Amino acid sequence: METMANNVAIEKSKTSKIQDVDFDNLSFGSVYSDHMLVCDYKNGEWSAPKVVPYQPITLDPSAKIFHYGQSIFEGMKAYKDEAGKIWLFRPLENWKRLNKSAKRLAIPELPEAYFMDGLNALLQVESDWVPQNPGSSLYIRPFIFASGNGFHASPADEYKFIIACAPSGSYFSGKVKVLIEETYSRAANGGVGYAKAGGNYAGQFYPTQLAAEKGYQQVIWTDDNTHEFIEEAGAMNVFVRIGDTLLTAPTNDRILDGITRKSILDIANDEGIKTEVRKVSVHELVEAAKNGTLKEMFGAGTAAVISPIAGFGYHGEDYDLPELENSYASLLKKRITDIQYNRAEDKFGWRYEVAQ
Amino acid sequence: METMANNVAIEKSKTSKIQDVDFDNLSFGSVYSDHMLVCDYKNGEWSAPKVVPYQPITLDPSAKIFHYGQSIFEGMKAYKDEAGKIWLFRPLENWKRLNKSAKRLAIPELPEAYFMDGLNALLQVESDWVPQNPGSSLYIRPFIFASGNGFHASPADEYKFIIACAPSGSYFSGKVKVLIEETYSRAANGGVGYAKAGGNYAGQFYPTQLAAEKGYQQVIWTDDNTHEFIEEAGAMNVFVRIGDTLLTAPTNDRILDGITRKSILDIANDEGIKTEVRKVSVHELVEAAKNGTLKEMFGAGTAAVISPIAGFGYHGEDYDLPELENSYASLLKKRITDIQYNRAEDKFGWRYEVAQ
Ligand SMILES: Cc1ncc(COP(=O)(O)O)c(C=O)c1O
Ligand SMILES: Cc1ncc(COP(=O)(O)O)c(C=O)c1O
Repeated sequence: METMANNVAIEKSKTSKIQDVDFDNLSFGSVYSDHMLVCDYKNGEWSAPKVVPYQPITLDPSAKIFHYGQSIFEGMKAYKDEAGKIWLFRPLENWKRLNKSAKRLAIPELPEAYFMDGLNALLQVESDWVPQNPGSSLYIRPFIFASGNGFHASPADEYKFIIACAPSGSYFSGKVKVLIEETYSRAANGGVGYAKAGGNYAGQFYPTQLAAEKGYQQVIWTDDNTHEFIEEAGAMNVFVRIGDTLLTAPTNDRILDGITRKSILDIANDEGIKTEVRKVSVHELVEAAKNGTLKEMFGAGTAAVISPIAGFGYHGEDYDLPELENSYASLLKKRITDIQYNRAEDKFGWRYEVAQ
Repeated sequence: METMANNVAIEKSKTSKIQDVDFDNLSFGSVYSDHMLVCDYKNGEWSAPKVVPYQPITLDPSAKIFHYGQSIFEGMKAYKDEAGKIWLFRPLENWKRLNKSAKRLAIPELPEAYFMDGLNALLQVESDWVPQNPGSSLYIRPFIFASGNGFHASPADEYKFIIACAPSGSYFSGKVKVLIEETYSRAANGGVGYAKAGGNYAGQFYPTQLAAEKGYQQVIWTDDNTHEFIEEAGAMNVFVRIGDTLLTAPTNDRILDGITRKSILDIANDEGIKTEVRKVSVHELVEAAKNGTLKEMFGAGTAAVISPIAGFGYHGEDYDLPELENSYASLLKKRITDIQYNRAEDKFGWRYEVAQ
């Protein structure tokens, strides 16, 4: 039976998997909700999106996604407040970035209404899937991939835009130790590093495995030319606190323009914390660690929110960070999650209520 | 009904599409043969490969191929000689490179026997699909992608290795004009450029579209740091002839180690042509074009074999190349294709006969 919501056709699933889910023990992104949004690009245009039962995708072996890596994605979360209302955080920023990624990967851009109406309709149907437990949320994965066929290395003529949802707990458990990378790189100047392109992630797995063998959970990427400046982590931007100043690298064509990153900068400024957006050299980091002015490092991203870093490895040496009582990380995490979960005033206008 | 060949189980297709194919007018990689080879990685190991009817692939929306670009491929050709025998060209090099790519993309390496036995069995079944027309061949596409599920940005736990085939004519028609890229890049130092990773190709589409709008069919990539040295083209390594010397860039972690490239170097040396494997600067190219010593440029790769370049654009200027009577490109193309199609002696031991 088909119904409509927010201009979007809805085909409801006959059964639900929700009773099988242990909402008190959620891992990250491994259980999927009952429905997904699907929207096809064919004959030069995107068709209207539809909510359908979560179901397998069937493709020809020659579909370009298998051969030429034409795929992009976004990562968002839906938060449920105490009253049961559902909130998104700056969703238009995700739509804008999706289209920035699309352009760089020669994927046709998606109309705003298809993204926003589709998202609203899907979340209306999946409202029971948004966890209310503290620290949990419904992780939302919009993605576009090349479904058109052909072994010729050129853009596909057909694409699929899908939004799938996974009720999730926290991404990392506890503090992480990071390795500052001196050999491998994540992105080229003039490359696709600023896009959320699938290929950017696959390229990080092997160096991250090598780091894990040495006892580090994450790699901090440096510029591919000199390896002298820190850029970002696997799926997070990186902040450093030296003395009382909070530092982060400027975005460029190698670094993802994180929505958490820019929100954290705004909140920090609002808190009266001194911030500097400038290149941060590994040398400066090591010196600060040695002379005791390096107070904090943390990653910032939608999945992990703020992930404190316990220490870093560089050039065969390990540098530990102090345990602070009143860290910027915990202050900033509280402020951003209070906005996300509708527990505090939203003076920035970032919260977006999902129609129910 | 299942049979066996080369230790590989074979499930034959009930019908064939071969009568629908116009072998006199083949395009490149857009018609697929009746069967494919499939081999699954699960529970920590590759299962034995099977030949099955060419058929769609079904995946969960959370399959990592859609999100994290974990995919690699190879490109090979099967050639039919006058007697109807079928030949491959240095197939073990493709297997070795597939595993080099696999390692960099954190994909489990594939055993040699699965690759070679699988290839032999598939080509035995598809022997009628190998065209005999001059310039045509059966293009062979081995590929591996992440079929395991999960939104966590980490390597998949399941993969699929597939070989599909497409009877094909030539990749480019006629000479191509190329643009020497000054803004965008293909690969980072310490990145995945030397691997045949899907994401490397998607990243090239947009800059190639921009070049096409200006009238160039291909982009010549330069190093991402200075854009001063030429590296390679979309799916070809690049050769330059200045005076009587044949030049090509050394391979490094940004450049694919092309099998055609290294074969061409061996043949050129055998012909007594002076070769130099060294960095070639754009400056040197422009100077040589201006003073008349730039005689030829061509791309070299399995799909296009040798693709002569008619001219290049750089910094808003166009430089034309002369039309030579006895070009290195035509001499080298004749020698390599004579070996590939079993029309001449194979002193290098490159030809590999497919068991029939
Ligand atoms: C490479 C990379 N950097 C940074 C981020 C953080 O961005 P955001 O805060 O928008 O989630 C992400 C992902 O989400 C990422 O994939
Ligand atoms: C980026 C790139 N460079 C060069 C080549 C040429 O390699 P080969 O001669 O082994 O086909 C290819 C592809 O086949 C390629 O994709």
